[in-house]
Amino acid sequence: MQFGPETHVPVSHRAAGVVILNQTGDILLVRENGVPGQRQKAGLWHIPSGTVEDGENPQDTAVREAWEEAGVRVRLLKFLAAYLGRFPDGVPVLRHAWLAQALPGSTFHPTFQYEVTEVRFVPQSDFLALYGAGQIRMHHTRLFYEDALREWERLKAGP
Amino acid sequence: MQFGPETHVPVSHRAAGVVILNQTGDILLVRENGVPGQRQKAGLWHIPSGTVEDGENPQDTAVREAWEEAGVRVRLLKFLAAYLGRFPDGVPVLRHAWLAQALPGSTFHPTFQYEVTEVRFVPQSDFLALYGAGQIRMHHTRLFYEDALREWERLKAGP
Repeated sequence: MQFGPETHVPVSHRAAGVVILNQTGDILLVRENGVPGQRQKAGLWHIPSGTVEDGENPQDTAVREAWEEAGVRVRLLKFLAAYLGRFPDGVPVLRHAWLAQALPGSTFHPTFQYEVTEVRFVPQSDFLALYGAGQIRMHHTRLFYEDALREWERLKAGP
Repeated sequence: MQFGPETHVPVSHRAAGVVILNQTGDILLVRENGVPGQRQKAGLWHIPSGTVEDGENPQDTAVREAWEEAGVRVRLLKFLAAYLGRFPDGVPVLRHAWLAQALPGSTFHPTFQYEVTEVRFVPQSDFLALYGAGQIRMHHTRLFYEDALREWERLKAGP
């Protein structure tokens, strides 16, 4: 039976972000500055994303992080996935991502420049090269990119 | 470092559904028939929801299940949450839900009548009584209802 709180597995760390593609399927990535305490992240690339704050809806987190990290106002097109992962210390984290569209007038410059040094559309071949070189911060970023390319094809094909 | 497939925790079972509220905050529930092999579920209540099929986007699952289990065509208003749980045998499952709106012309009769015997808006006080009596199939249903009431208040309050 599926009743009762004992069937619930709390995951206290959650993150949310966006996959934004251009016309040729390149993915928008941001490059980590490595804020104090997180220097090991410096120079790595990932999608605009960040921690879901207490009481925040992950969907709102995704929109907020797109603005903070990439200077982009977005419209969310479709949920992609929620993936469970582990931090190096073993603590579980649930990461959500949406396929999103940049609204006209977006600057593609980080709003929070102490967190992000660069915002750039990266072609799929370059993404795979960066991934192979360990320069993409999370394996989930690759899964989300694959999900996004699939959804994008579906959306283009229509209902 | 968050790089590499070893930081990914696969969850092979996924489910998705919808929370639909009426004007007074009652929640739309469906009552399980208990198909062969799942007789222990017979008579229990839950939100319209079901298994995410291979290659299916959870958002599409939610829309599909609303139609199959409750006869409702929906517009998804907002993602609510993804909760991790365990089946009685310990196998993990990730359950997603969206706050949704029934489109005009919805019948509120199950399309798949072998799965569902009844579709009904349940007031919050009755929901808690059913929950207390173990008649709500999943603890996550209660969490999703709480999430939905909070999001509904936010949406009414406007941006």
